[in-house]
Amino acid sequence: MRLSRYFLPVTKETPADAQIVSHKLMLRAGLIRQTAAGIYAWLPLGLRVLNRIEQIVREEQDKAGAIELLMPTVQSADLWRESGRYDAYGPEMLRFKDRHEREMLYGPTNEEMITILFRDAVKSYRDLPRTLYHIQWKFRDEVRPRFGVMRGREFLMKDAYSFDLDEEGLRRSYEAMFVAYLRTFARMGLQAVPVRAPTGPIGGNLSHEFHVLAETGESAVYYDAALEDVTHEELLSADASTIARLTDLYAMEAEEHEKVTECPVPADRLRTRRGIEVGHIFAFGTKYSASMGMTVQTSDGGNVHPHMGSYGIGVSRLMGAIIEASHDDNGIVWPEAVAPYRVGLINMRADDGNVTSAADDIYGRLQQAGVDTLYDDRDERGGAKFATMDVIGLPWQLIVGPKGLEKGVVELKRRATGEREELSVESALARLTAA
Amino acid sequence: MRLSRYFLPVTKETPADAQIVSHKLMLRAGLIRQTAAGIYAWLPLGLRVLNRIEQIVREEQDKAGAIELLMPTVQSADLWRESGRYDAYGPEMLRFKDRHEREMLYGPTNEEMITILFRDAVKSYRDLPRTLYHIQWKFRDEVRPRFGVMRGREFLMKDAYSFDLDEEGLRRSYEAMFVAYLRTFARMGLQAVPVRAPTGPIGGNLSHEFHVLAETGESAVYYDAALEDVTHEELLSADASTIARLTDLYAMEAEEHEKVTECPVPADRLRTRRGIEVGHIFAFGTKYSASMGMTVQTSDGGNVHPHMGSYGIGVSRLMGAIIEASHDDNGIVWPEAVAPYRVGLINMRADDGNVTSAADDIYGRLQQAGVDTLYDDRDERGGAKFATMDVIGLPWQLIVGPKGLEKGVVELKRRATGEREELSVESALARLTAA
Repeated sequence: MRLSRYFLPVTKETPADAQIVSHKLMLRAGLIRQTAAGIYAWLPLGLRVLNRIEQIVREEQDKAGAIELLMPTVQSADLWRESGRYDAYGPEMLRFKDRHEREMLYGPTNEEMITILFRDAVKSYRDLPRTLYHIQWKFRDEVRPRFGVMRGREFLMKDAYSFDLDEEGLRRSYEAMFVAYLRTFARMGLQAVPVRAPTGPIGGNLSHEFHVLAETGESAVYYDAALEDVTHEELLSADASTIARLTDLYAMEAEEHEKVTECPVPADRLRTRRGIEVGHIFAFGTKYSASMGMTVQTSDGGNVHPHMGSYGIGVSRLMGAIIEASHDDNGIVWPEAVAPYRVGLINMRADDGNVTSAADDIYGRLQQAGVDTLYDDRDERGGAKFATMDVIGLPWQLIVGPKGLEKGVVELKRRATGEREELSVESALARLTAA
Repeated sequence: MRLSRYFLPVTKETPADAQIVSHKLMLRAGLIRQTAAGIYAWLPLGLRVLNRIEQIVREEQDKAGAIELLMPTVQSADLWRESGRYDAYGPEMLRFKDRHEREMLYGPTNEEMITILFRDAVKSYRDLPRTLYHIQWKFRDEVRPRFGVMRGREFLMKDAYSFDLDEEGLRRSYEAMFVAYLRTFARMGLQAVPVRAPTGPIGGNLSHEFHVLAETGESAVYYDAALEDVTHEELLSADASTIARLTDLYAMEAEEHEKVTECPVPADRLRTRRGIEVGHIFAFGTKYSASMGMTVQTSDGGNVHPHMGSYGIGVSRLMGAIIEASHDDNGIVWPEAVAPYRVGLINMRADDGNVTSAADDIYGRLQQAGVDTLYDDRDERGGAKFATMDVIGLPWQLIVGPKGLEKGVVELKRRATGEREELSVESALARLTAA
């Protein structure tokens, strides 16, 4: 993409209410613009990152055997009356009436809707187990929306729901999602810790929150150092016993940890870091299948309420969390897997025919090789171009200027380390087109 | 995908309020389920089709130079007060208040929001022209939602907005979208006619509706037969004069055609067919840039209100239109480009080890070759499997049964024609893996 034809409004100033670094950088880098309190438009560069995050989430859900569908954003209040949650849910639920005075709401989550879709379609044990998911916009009317997309009102969430015949099946479905979550975050270049979550009023059930570790995280977590040693390879080949071991490893939010009288982790293995919650999984059993009258026939002719779990990932929130975990004084440092473009190509002298023709040629070759490239071909000062590239944080910058070309070289800069290297155009292209 | 692990609730009965064939077939084929009046969940098979349609729309927008972003579904009423449309818009606009009593709405369209995003980011003629688009859920509170996704309340729409310095630029942007639309519909296997639309109260401006031709279409259109001769190749290489010729060709909705006193098309070249509106493009000039105070500086230091156009495609509606245009008594007949899977593989005897092992092997090889395959591996009667495959309308059915295998053959059926052919597994695979 040529910057001269793109829509990338980078800015130097950020509003006073942008308190945290990810919020500031998302505004400065032209990723988002607020259109109402806690509601954001995703500008072209931001949308590309959002799509990459979403796609990684999707691929890992698919690999775990979950099936994608798409439920609408607007729901009927009646659905929530059936489960008994309509009155229980607080003012975070955005409620309204349609033109016929029917009570509706903007879905904050989808347990009720998935339960009726499944209930009306599935009658037999042969159709279980199933895990269904969707990636859809949700609305929670936060009393004080803040921190940009980290606590916005309209946000993108992946929510999955599993249906099993019994508790043992539910545990297997839960564990499959547990591992899928660890893989998902690892692929994004994040270190995520599965924190044992309080099980709430239902009690006795299994629940984990996933916290991305970042110095600027919202809360402190305490965890067994063994969680740091889990490799991506191990996750890919994890068998039942490995997964069972992982779900049992100690990790607690500070508040919960302080209540623990005897921590099972020896002091030299206990770590504490700050974290940002980006996922939450929960095995709740027959809560909705019982209240909403969903039964399936078992192989011996009986009837059971399926055991369910739900599994959420904050897709838009993840973008903020990634930036909190990966930035420096000059801007964002995108992990390769979610970067909006891999390469930022800088023409240092758009008013110089030779430089422009060399840069155009490199751009053409990068495109041909399928390397996502943002090409700064504008007639602007070099300093401004460097600042823009640094703040938007593409993994690689390729700088083409008159002095270098005289010597037959271009400059390649790695954003994460700031390392710069002069090398021939051919070597630079070889480097960037390699996997 | 193995059907034994999928979520595909096909049904024989459809509710009485499903009057048109696409609505009936979308329910029968397990593509959608209604969750409230005019609001649908997209089941896994339906979502796959929706994604394919969306992707074709996206690719043609990108090729036309439009830039994708994503605006939120919930908007502030203040935005619409700025343009003066808040009070003018009827009860189709879903309005509500948030917990702080601020007036909000679920966006039915985005002229206002894109205008402020552009206004706040762009100050100079150097940043024009630009066309920005998004593909997002919209809500229109129809008084009587009906015809399934053809007139639903929550629907997916692509809307693009162009910004130019003057009328001449706007005409170029308009024509680029005009051709992109014809390409978009042609790629989906549809015949679409650009109908000159009444220009409304603003007057004097250019507007076209795009109607997909289908016997069951909602309204009659009259058009110059020359529109039928436009080839996809011609569209790909269309220059300015070709486009100008195409935008001028005669095509009118019946109601408008009847008002024409002297039809410019000779009787032998005048065609009439029924059509379904799936797109609408509109050059409206400075309506929003003037009312919302957007100006850009020109090269000579002056200030102008950019000239704008807007360009909509009903993405979810298109699915209904495609089915109206392409079905038979047994079900849907998907054009290849939007089919949810290319091949339906049928194991005729899941209880027979030999047949199952042959079918499993074919499934593995189709997957390896990257052919999207839905594999009916369930232990069900052959008749039920045929009926399911016919109603869901995948382009190819590959049938593996005991009698054929004895002879060393499988059966390949082309859904569109019903043609069946016995051939060796190798030949069948060669046929299906060919582009």
